[in-house]
Amino acid sequence: MLRAAVIGATGYAGAELVRILSGHPDVSLSVITSRQDAGIAYDTIYPAMRGVVNLECAESDPAAVAKKADVVFLALPHKASMAMVPDLLDAGRRVVDLSADFRFSNRDAYELHYQAHTCAHLMVEAVYGLCEIYGDAVAAADLIGNPGCYPTSVLLPLLPLVKAKLVDPATVIADCKSGVSGAGREATATTHFCHVNESFKAYKVGAHRHTPEIEENIARFAGAPVKITFVPHLLPMTRGMESTVYVTLSPGADERQIRDCLESHYRDKPFIRLLPGGRFPDTLHVRGTNVCDIGWVVDPGSGRLVLMSAIDNLVKGAAGQAVQNMNLMFGFEETAGLDGVPFPL
Amino acid sequence: MLRAAVIGATGYAGAELVRILSGHPDVSLSVITSRQDAGIAYDTIYPAMRGVVNLECAESDPAAVAKKADVVFLALPHKASMAMVPDLLDAGRRVVDLSADFRFSNRDAYELHYQAHTCAHLMVEAVYGLCEIYGDAVAAADLIGNPGCYPTSVLLPLLPLVKAKLVDPATVIADCKSGVSGAGREATATTHFCHVNESFKAYKVGAHRHTPEIEENIARFAGAPVKITFVPHLLPMTRGMESTVYVTLSPGADERQIRDCLESHYRDKPFIRLLPGGRFPDTLHVRGTNVCDIGWVVDPGSGRLVLMSAIDNLVKGAAGQAVQNMNLMFGFEETAGLDGVPFPL
Amino acid sequence: MLRAAVIGATGYAGAELVRILSGHPDVSLSVITSRQDAGIAYDTIYPAMRGVVNLECAESDPAAVAKKADVVFLALPHKASMAMVPDLLDAGRRVVDLSADFRFSNRDAYELHYQAHTCAHLMVEAVYGLCEIYGDAVAAADLIGNPGCYPTSVLLPLLPLVKAKLVDPATVIADCKSGVSGAGREATATTHFCHVNESFKAYKVGAHRHTPEIEENIARFAGAPVKITFVPHLLPMTRGMESTVYVTLSPGADERQIRDCLESHYRDKPFIRLLPGGRFPDTLHVRGTNVCDIGWVVDPGSGRLVLMSAIDNLVKGAAGQAVQNMNLMFGFEETAGLDGVPFPL
Amino acid sequence: MLRAAVIGATGYAGAELVRILSGHPDVSLSVITSRQDAGIAYDTIYPAMRGVVNLECAESDPAAVAKKADVVFLALPHKASMAMVPDLLDAGRRVVDLSADFRFSNRDAYELHYQAHTCAHLMVEAVYGLCEIYGDAVAAADLIGNPGCYPTSVLLPLLPLVKAKLVDPATVIADCKSGVSGAGREATATTHFCHVNESFKAYKVGAHRHTPEIEENIARFAGAPVKITFVPHLLPMTRGMESTVYVTLSPGADERQIRDCLESHYRDKPFIRLLPGGRFPDTLHVRGTNVCDIGWVVDPGSGRLVLMSAIDNLVKGAAGQAVQNMNLMFGFEETAGLDGVPFPL
Repeated sequence: MLRAAVIGATGYAGAELVRILSGHPDVSLSVITSRQDAGIAYDTIYPAMRGVVNLECAESDPAAVAKKADVVFLALPHKASMAMVPDLLDAGRRVVDLSADFRFSNRDAYELHYQAHTCAHLMVEAVYGLCEIYGDAVAAADLIGNPGCYPTSVLLPLLPLVKAKLVDPATVIADCKSGVSGAGREATATTHFCHVNESFKAYKVGAHRHTPEIEENIARFAGAPVKITFVPHLLPMTRGMESTVYVTLSPGADERQIRDCLESHYRDKPFIRLLPGGRFPDTLHVRGTNVCDIGWVVDPGSGRLVLMSAIDNLVKGAAGQAVQNMNLMFGFEETAGLDGVPFPL
Repeated sequence: MLRAAVIGATGYAGAELVRILSGHPDVSLSVITSRQDAGIAYDTIYPAMRGVVNLECAESDPAAVAKKADVVFLALPHKASMAMVPDLLDAGRRVVDLSADFRFSNRDAYELHYQAHTCAHLMVEAVYGLCEIYGDAVAAADLIGNPGCYPTSVLLPLLPLVKAKLVDPATVIADCKSGVSGAGREATATTHFCHVNESFKAYKVGAHRHTPEIEENIARFAGAPVKITFVPHLLPMTRGMESTVYVTLSPGADERQIRDCLESHYRDKPFIRLLPGGRFPDTLHVRGTNVCDIGWVVDPGSGRLVLMSAIDNLVKGAAGQAVQNMNLMFGFEETAGLDGVPFPL
Repeated sequence: MLRAAVIGATGYAGAELVRILSGHPDVSLSVITSRQDAGIAYDTIYPAMRGVVNLECAESDPAAVAKKADVVFLALPHKASMAMVPDLLDAGRRVVDLSADFRFSNRDAYELHYQAHTCAHLMVEAVYGLCEIYGDAVAAADLIGNPGCYPTSVLLPLLPLVKAKLVDPATVIADCKSGVSGAGREATATTHFCHVNESFKAYKVGAHRHTPEIEENIARFAGAPVKITFVPHLLPMTRGMESTVYVTLSPGADERQIRDCLESHYRDKPFIRLLPGGRFPDTLHVRGTNVCDIGWVVDPGSGRLVLMSAIDNLVKGAAGQAVQNMNLMFGFEETAGLDGVPFPL
Repeated sequence: MLRAAVIGATGYAGAELVRILSGHPDVSLSVITSRQDAGIAYDTIYPAMRGVVNLECAESDPAAVAKKADVVFLALPHKASMAMVPDLLDAGRRVVDLSADFRFSNRDAYELHYQAHTCAHLMVEAVYGLCEIYGDAVAAADLIGNPGCYPTSVLLPLLPLVKAKLVDPATVIADCKSGVSGAGREATATTHFCHVNESFKAYKVGAHRHTPEIEENIARFAGAPVKITFVPHLLPMTRGMESTVYVTLSPGADERQIRDCLESHYRDKPFIRLLPGGRFPDTLHVRGTNVCDIGWVVDPGSGRLVLMSAIDNLVKGAAGQAVQNMNLMFGFEETAGLDGVPFPL
């Protein structure tokens, strides 16, 4: 059994890692840490885990963690991650980092939107862990920058089409909607039930830091820098992310080519479901799973392509994809630990 | 007191009309009808109204209604409306119709998306009741085609800018989200709590009949036909509609001109609130009111304009706007019956 | 116009007071205060109020408030209230206090469950503001202890029956459920959307401080001390409180006597609706109103009486009842400012 | 692999059976039927199952089913079940019936609350499938009457205490709350999102047919007939059931004895979690699992015992318990197929 550690195990992404790894057939969850909750039994923080996870939260000490784990998941805020990753790699551990610190290969873009990077040499070495796109590189990586939730939901339907030059990457508009768990466990005015319930609104319009992350990956396949319009919205639900992406078709491209391209790219990808015509992705249908549902329509009036995707922001948008990355890195079945049957409702 | 009738009083738009008219200082609700619930006390259908509305549902008979009412609100499905309107007008009644039957001046567009029109001569006579845009015509009208909820939410932020030629009408993309009450009172798989809760999805992509309604009104100000991309989505909430509209700025247009244009157009409109920079419309803040909140951002990366609006789909998107039309038609205060203080949460 | 002040205007009960007083025909809202948000425009805290409430939050200084207001509402935590009330009364102002500080006439009970009382002489002078029960005393009072939400919902169905000796007060079990707004505006683990959504649970079982408040009022009519069983639960909704109260009928008492007693007591009370047989109170039907719906069944198997009530915890359970108290104190219509038509959904 | 059939696979309990059996290590789901949806691919009805369940719904024909399955789950309305069970048993199949038809051993009680029983001889043979109480009989049974959701949630905390004579069975009051999925898949006024959202209410007060089912099982351990008071309520959530049960302690009984009794009875039961003092069951913590969380308090004022339980009404309250019964009947691990890790949120 591979020994796995989760650093930052009491945030929502960390808790979801704990859930998935607890049921993983090839992994033993050997250590979980939390700066804030060190010394506390995990099931007092997440009572659902009573009888399932019998661990206490340890301090987030990289050296101690490295001794007890073969693979380390970091579910920390950016900046906190880059302070720990070098030590873990030096100790020979392989790392999946869920923060933004190792998602960019362009240092300037990272530093413009986040802060100075203290181990920029690792940015190049790290692999962007969008498994269905960069799976081969993932398998060989020691350090994964696990994709953001919004980028995952936007890039999965879009990248194969950009690569095949079926769409114009300069025209991308991504209108995205996320459940509240994406805002994290911290209790704030934003996450108060009475402010979320019966509320829907855009936020950080034109200013969300997932924008450059999406743009870097589109640019890689477009062969040139791109600027997109990205508007995130907050949904009154716990889990779930839907993205509706608008893009102009390349001259001559049609619906048939779109389907062929996506079917060809995703033929053997176990977590991608391409919906038949007339069916649209629904967050409810992927809740609690690592699945990404994708649908599309060529709008008859305007001729624009409308792409839609649905994921569970905590699973395919965070912890599930992190475990999928680990599966590829260690040669496990890609679906190991991620094959729970979806809930019908 | 003006005597008002609501035909189709037990559907959601009808029920909201009953609510608003019951509190209107200048109106007496004289008759409510329901084909399906004729003979039933209204408060057994809507128990919230116990002690407030002491009426029974009558049959939906135009002649009988015309005798008892000076103004008639029709909250019926399209087609059912056009069967009643001529008789009501012939009897000298003024009519606000909430169906699509009198929203179009272009008969072909209507018949393409709905069905044959049986009183097409009235389509020309009818006024499209978007009060903040066509208020003068409304005041003089005998027949109002009350706007659809989506068109209201898209056109209010957009039309002044189209008229001022600050945006390119060929580039409009409207990503809209509606609460479930927009789907009506009928119990269906779509409205079942267990299918809505924790669900978010697009529907009728590229095929919703509010598309031509929006297009006709943009075209009127653009001076030429336009095609837009419109994608509606279903939100897990009862009331509320948010629209995020993407459009390319005209050459030379900037954020300051956008603000000036909107402020100038909406200066004296009591139900429009233009949000300060950095604040975005939230369905929760307009719940139960006739207000339309409007915000916008010029996306720094792409240069596109992002317009956002929030309304209560049952009020400004249906019954409230219908009453606002009546207020203009009969010379009441525009806000009469619509000035309830909003709920803070 | 009576000048009214709200001290603590940015908590949820305070915000609801602001809403109701803003629409009150006989009142001018002259000053609102907030220790935490002093100097901030009210509509940046509650954007729904944009264009409706154009006040800034002032400091919570009793002397300054007393100069500008004829009636003062205190929406503060207990203990903070008792520190301000004497000064306000000395300045000749009439006060409605929404905390627990003046709800008890029994000082020992208060001090056992809260803390030492610093102006115990006022406890006797204060009137418990359950309007339908103590209305005459309310009209003459200078200081109202506005009832707690749970006590309101339990006492309204119960007290007339206790007084009429139709039920055995020693057998009262109150199983109560409250929406999240009852937990207040503070962002905590308890109010985080992701912990509330799809969650239902009891809390403070056998330990909630509304227990002695309920007991003191039952005892007053029973003529002897009573102990009840009271279990509060948290509902995944913003507003609403339902209480199901179980009590043994007195020998010989029957359903007819129960109805007669309640109908007789509540005949002319505008905010009490007694439901017909077979209909049960629903929080949705009283949302946003000052109404208390009451229903009941004599359980055919056990012979116990089951009483049910539904209120909006922020209105009849807090701010609405506070305004109702003011109406009685100043001789306004009892329903003034509280007669908004309910929402059908 | 054991071949399993689900008759009535498109209702909510049936769909949950399909989910659980699809992931069961010892079972192959060989046939699913639906009268209403015969001939339709299952994943068009439950799109979450796309790629997981590749079956079509067959007709609900017992003879055809018996040929293809070793164990048959019936997820049908009562009456429909009793029409099929005899044929299935005659064909040598073992049956788990989720309707009420085989839950009663007292024919009169069944016929009083349901209808005439057409195979009453099987009522005696059938075992009431409350696994933690009647596990030995379950293992030997050919026909299981799978318990109702409310009875499961009330009986699990209560029966060990009744058996140990620690509580007075004549004093039981069960105040129970269920998520909407308990009302089934049919779209009705009751299940419409807009009537459920922000709504909480009691229903069928003193008239719910789970009352005699609870009473029969208490009586079995009390040694005499009992009458309880049972009031069900509807919660605005999809899955989850909480029951708060009030009962008078026997003379001399105390909190320590209650804990000892429950701990002793449930020591080796994998799905029962007894909560430590001060923690109360929460539907969120058992969502999607077969777990029943149990907590309790001796109310300090009244001395009454307050028992609380939380289950997922579709799992432990229906399909999960049905599979648990099958596991016991066929000698599988009791937790097989039911050991998915709970969700932290």
